[in-house]
Amino acid sequence: MAAPNPAPAGPCKVVLAASIAKLLSQEVQAGLAALDRKPHLHGFLANKDPAARMYAEWTGKTCRENGFDFTIREVEREDLEDELRNANSDDAVDGVIVYYPVFDSKRDRTLQWTVSMYKDVEGLSPQLISNMYQNIRFLDPPNNLQKSILPCTPLACIKILEHLRVYNTFLDYGKRLFGRRITVINRSEVVGRPLAALLANDGAEVYSVDVTGVQHFSRGSGLKKQKHDVTDMEGWGLEQCLPISDVVISGVPGDSYKVPTHLIREGAVCINFSSEKVRGDSIEPVNLNMHTDNHYRTSLLMSRSAHRSTCLLSAR
Amino acid sequence: MAAPNPAPAGPCKVVLAASIAKLLSQEVQAGLAALDRKPHLHGFLANKDPAARMYAEWTGKTCRENGFDFTIREVEREDLEDELRNANSDDAVDGVIVYYPVFDSKRDRTLQWTVSMYKDVEGLSPQLISNMYQNIRFLDPPNNLQKSILPCTPLACIKILEHLRVYNTFLDYGKRLFGRRITVINRSEVVGRPLAALLANDGAEVYSVDVTGVQHFSRGSGLKKQKHDVTDMEGWGLEQCLPISDVVISGVPGDSYKVPTHLIREGAVCINFSSEKVRGDSIEPVNLNMHTDNHYRTSLLMSRSAHRSTCLLSAR
Repeated sequence: MAAPNPAPAGPCKVVLAASIAKLLSQEVQAGLAALDRKPHLHGFLANKDPAARMYAEWTGKTCRENGFDFTIREVEREDLEDELRNANSDDAVDGVIVYYPVFDSKRDRTLQWTVSMYKDVEGLSPQLISNMYQNIRFLDPPNNLQKSILPCTPLACIKILEHLRVYNTFLDYGKRLFGRRITVINRSEVVGRPLAALLANDGAEVYSVDVTGVQHFSRGSGLKKQKHDVTDMEGWGLEQCLPISDVVISGVPGDSYKVPTHLIREGAVCINFSSEKVRGDSIEPVNLNMHTDNHYRTSLLMSRSAHRSTCLLSAR
Repeated sequence: MAAPNPAPAGPCKVVLAASIAKLLSQEVQAGLAALDRKPHLHGFLANKDPAARMYAEWTGKTCRENGFDFTIREVEREDLEDELRNANSDDAVDGVIVYYPVFDSKRDRTLQWTVSMYKDVEGLSPQLISNMYQNIRFLDPPNNLQKSILPCTPLACIKILEHLRVYNTFLDYGKRLFGRRITVINRSEVVGRPLAALLANDGAEVYSVDVTGVQHFSRGSGLKKQKHDVTDMEGWGLEQCLPISDVVISGVPGDSYKVPTHLIREGAVCINFSSEKVRGDSIEPVNLNMHTDNHYRTSLLMSRSAHRSTCLLSAR
């Protein structure tokens, strides 16, 4: 990725993600003020990866800046399951984050399954993931005070779409994307598929695109279904999806893939998470790195270009 | 029109226009509070039509309820031009409204041209109308403190679209409809054509439809033009416009014309002014009369229907 540049002048509306993060941070502050003590997040570090350590320290810095307590818990990886079980039953532990990979194999999944869904800030517990796909939004019906946690990258994308008023707050909660058509390029289990499901559950018609083809995520005519269904769109490609989409979200990692921007309609909102590793969430500031080249503008914006430049958000 | 009925249950979101009017009224109150005296509107009545008298009295009631002074000035029609000239130079007269028709001929136009554009609350002065089409929004550039007045029915429609968040306040003033496609069925000089121009000047792609065909009102790719251009769309009809429109506004008077609602896309916002005489503005409350039949829902709403019912606002 090129060095950050100033926002490009031109026909697109560019938004610094920092401005979105600032507002989210204010929301978090308001929530914190209602509590009688600081929430305490515990970060479990069980590998020797210096990058994981840096990320953990950065989490801690962000937590403290935002009024949370944070403790790094360095443990041997064979002890981690026990440590997580202890944390689950420890009232002093409000939230748990694990720095993956630990075993760097399928065994890591059992660690994800061990964290209590009531303390899982990453939204990786099976019940939370199932709730997300099933459009079950609360853990405590019918009281509905405790939200089912969403994974951070799809959630960051939703927060961005809310900020851009793509979510129409005039409509009822849970239906605020009704009438929007959204293309999501990427169908990974980490970002693309959960994001498509969330957007469709909020009322959008979603075209989920990857190398295997296009799938349509939708709650059906009049949002009659309580959750989205998925349909294979035989013969469809970006040629069909992009010209009818109000929003285009690209999450293809690496530099080799380019969105065919000439297919994007004027006025479309374009977001790109340039790597699967790219992360933003509702607690940590969303950092924006911007650059331009002939194909991309790495920034969040409303496309106003006659040249239909793709405009991207890099939140890491 | 049938008697008002309760809002129909069903897949559409119905909005009582009274709720919009209430918010507008609050905005007006805030503006009034900043003044050192009540603005005084003078209504000139120079015909013997009992309906005009009733309308004038209703204007007065609404004015007084909203904190304005109002005086009905009954004059002989041959004296009206002189009376208007006097009012133009009378500092005690803040606003002028004339109850038309007076001569019920083209001569009425010279009355419209006589009212000072600085006192013309109906926005019928030639300079105001020209400003509207030319996308000139202020009378006092570069200070831009004094807005060029818009005619009330198109303005009411814009206020409604703002309320429904069709105007995206995330975008810059003057461009908040960028990316929206809007069909306006009716191209009268009173409603349809000024409305199409206003919407296009605010950034929308507008399809203006009447019996003579379809015209496209647009500021061009990337809103490069300062005001809209108009292009004839040869071979186009509602079959081309409605399926791609986010908003459908129908202003065809009378009961005989029906919008082919099966062509309207899901999630479209549908508004109908059922008569050219129908009026709403930013001062007077917008009254909503609702009825249903097999073709129409007379109400303002977000269409959520599998049956794609047309949903209409009747503001009179």
